[in-house]
Amino acid sequence: MKVLITGIDGYTGWPLALHLLQRGHDVAGLDNFVTRRRVREVGSWSAVPIPPFSRRLETVRSALGRTISFHRGDVRNYAFVRRTLETERPDAIVHLGEQRSAPYSMIDVEHAVRTQTENIAGTIHLLYAMRDLVPDCHLVKMGTMGEYGTPNVDIPEGFFEATYRGRTDPHLPFPRQAGSWYHWSKVHDSGNVMFATRIFGLRATDVMQGVVYGIRTPEMTVPGLLTRFDFDNVWGTALNRFVAETILGLPITPYGKGGQTRGYIAIEDSIQSLRLSVEHPVGPGEYRVVNQFDEAYSVNALAEITREVGREMGYDPTIEHLPNPRVELEEHYYRPIHEKLAEMGYRRTRELREVLRELFRDLARYRGRLKAKQAVVFPTVDWRHGATSSPTGVLTDAGGSPEGSGPSVERPADPVAPER
Amino acid sequence: MKVLITGIDGYTGWPLALHLLQRGHDVAGLDNFVTRRRVREVGSWSAVPIPPFSRRLETVRSALGRTISFHRGDVRNYAFVRRTLETERPDAIVHLGEQRSAPYSMIDVEHAVRTQTENIAGTIHLLYAMRDLVPDCHLVKMGTMGEYGTPNVDIPEGFFEATYRGRTDPHLPFPRQAGSWYHWSKVHDSGNVMFATRIFGLRATDVMQGVVYGIRTPEMTVPGLLTRFDFDNVWGTALNRFVAETILGLPITPYGKGGQTRGYIAIEDSIQSLRLSVEHPVGPGEYRVVNQFDEAYSVNALAEITREVGREMGYDPTIEHLPNPRVELEEHYYRPIHEKLAEMGYRRTRELREVLRELFRDLARYRGRLKAKQAVVFPTVDWRHGATSSPTGVLTDAGGSPEGSGPSVERPADPVAPER
Repeated sequence: MKVLITGIDGYTGWPLALHLLQRGHDVAGLDNFVTRRRVREVGSWSAVPIPPFSRRLETVRSALGRTISFHRGDVRNYAFVRRTLETERPDAIVHLGEQRSAPYSMIDVEHAVRTQTENIAGTIHLLYAMRDLVPDCHLVKMGTMGEYGTPNVDIPEGFFEATYRGRTDPHLPFPRQAGSWYHWSKVHDSGNVMFATRIFGLRATDVMQGVVYGIRTPEMTVPGLLTRFDFDNVWGTALNRFVAETILGLPITPYGKGGQTRGYIAIEDSIQSLRLSVEHPVGPGEYRVVNQFDEAYSVNALAEITREVGREMGYDPTIEHLPNPRVELEEHYYRPIHEKLAEMGYRRTRELREVLRELFRDLARYRGRLKAKQAVVFPTVDWRHGATSSPTGVLTDAGGSPEGSGPSVERPADPVAPER
Repeated sequence: MKVLITGIDGYTGWPLALHLLQRGHDVAGLDNFVTRRRVREVGSWSAVPIPPFSRRLETVRSALGRTISFHRGDVRNYAFVRRTLETERPDAIVHLGEQRSAPYSMIDVEHAVRTQTENIAGTIHLLYAMRDLVPDCHLVKMGTMGEYGTPNVDIPEGFFEATYRGRTDPHLPFPRQAGSWYHWSKVHDSGNVMFATRIFGLRATDVMQGVVYGIRTPEMTVPGLLTRFDFDNVWGTALNRFVAETILGLPITPYGKGGQTRGYIAIEDSIQSLRLSVEHPVGPGEYRVVNQFDEAYSVNALAEITREVGREMGYDPTIEHLPNPRVELEEHYYRPIHEKLAEMGYRRTRELREVLRELFRDLARYRGRLKAKQAVVFPTVDWRHGATSSPTGVLTDAGGSPEGSGPSVERPADPVAPER
């Protein structure tokens, strides 16, 4: 199959490209390198240095003997989206080309508006271009388990049978209660994609993904193929921060009581899952929602497991709870269903402790890069008040429009530069 | 109370301003006159001629002896929103300043993106400016009954108790299944407003309004105070089109089978309802959803009632069903609950037939204006294919960015010009 990956330079896009190539698919990709710039914006970088994209492509050629058809540009630009689809005529599109950080969206009004309008515009552009150019193409769109929030009932895969006042609807969208402007942007996208399948007859799989951990997949046979590892408080997950804190000799810092529970999946199994969705397209007009995670952990459990594995690896972290900068339940019921991927043949291959050991080994060599950006491990963005501190002085200098509103389609794309 | 109305020049904003003044409230308003321009964009106009806004303000002074504090500008401009809230310090904001046409949002990709990103940006701008400047202010945000779609169960006011797999959550958002990019923009807004009440502790009432009919409220003591009447296929409701068709001697044209059922409310009672929500604010952090309509009618029932009342008034229309340009169920269950307004003291004052008689009388004098734009009464926008015909040649010349994406914050505001 020919698969187009939007956001191919990103944490998930890159290993997905490698895996699809290895499985014999043709891979095309697009990216505007905005994540590289926005990680710099908050004064951080990836612990694993990420080579310029042109070098990544060369490494793929030399290490895997394959080529990727790459289009540099922005899904906010409709003409670019059309040109790319016209050139590539993909059988499937995996749409990862969105702003993906909850804290980034909470920095201030501009980051809130930017996150939502950019993510929405990009997705609608893809839907229209698909309708006009590749109506049989299957869209695999990245959502998040965070769309559902933490209801007091089990969480189905997208739809449920509901009985209310004595009547039953067998197929209602499950209510969404997201926890950041970013998570809401994914909810908005989900509604839009569901609607497009209905009016345009498009095929779509909506992936409600849990938190992903790890940086290594089997296709990464040389260090130049590794994916990024964000450990700052804006772009990194709680687990990534905990690992960085452990290596740096800092306390592990859960937010609040630590009972916040989410679904987790290893990067290798996330990639497997996305590949399975691609290889099992739905029919025309069909909108499938897949809950993509393996196991639920509380933040406290993650902190404990990180400490245990850290000790094995020779570190000795303490655990110190910080006031929670987010607005979220810190003790709650959490039991999402995840059955559809198993029906497509999914088999979990990685366990958290094993991946943590691997992570500690991989990151040990980049301790200097962790150390250099140590200040941004701790929270700088409060859900109620926005950016509260700015160790690097750049958080409040976001480079947006003077009005502080709307996506900035006109802004020139990033240079294809390394992340240093 | 001091009430700020965004979109004060619009169909609902204008009569709401008059009514609030008459009730003794102070009224401030903002508008960018974009609806005037966008109605021209599709080759139409209001059957009731709408004077320049400055003249409207003069008429208010002379007829009611009151003044409105007006700010010309755009909610997409955050600096403008802040300045306005800083100046006015309102106790309540009624947010009507959004793109409000479903067919307009379905014209093409640009109109889809524009509708969603503009509506979302404006609402988020208000939420942040409220947090910073008037945290006790009560936001009354205009949504639509169309957010819920047509589920096979009763529709509660925003939230319901759901039991799933043996557990119960007493307060889940009722699932949304909107039917156009516009309606989805309102769903997105609702999620965002709900979230803002939670993180910022703001007060908000979210109005799920049914379709509104009529142009006259008791405060309109002179013709210069009437509100607009849109009868074209993009900006007018089905009922408005039916009335225009009857006066023009055209057949009444329901889309599809005509079993599509929605909730309806007269303009005077819609204004009463909004005033009641304003006068009964919720507490800090509270998010109240109100279903605002009086009675549900199918499109066929509306067509029949229009024919009956039309005959009384000396017309003799036939009814001819057109192929449905929309994607919607044409036969379905529909039973929404509406109890909260009654608890605030709401009493229905107007009946459909009575308002229709009044409408026929008011519009008879503008028959020439209906006739001049007769071509745009019939559908020009198909849900699957977008704008399908362009009698005036302007539908495809939307004046947006060359990329066809993103809100155009930079565009200069409209001149305060009459709508001719």
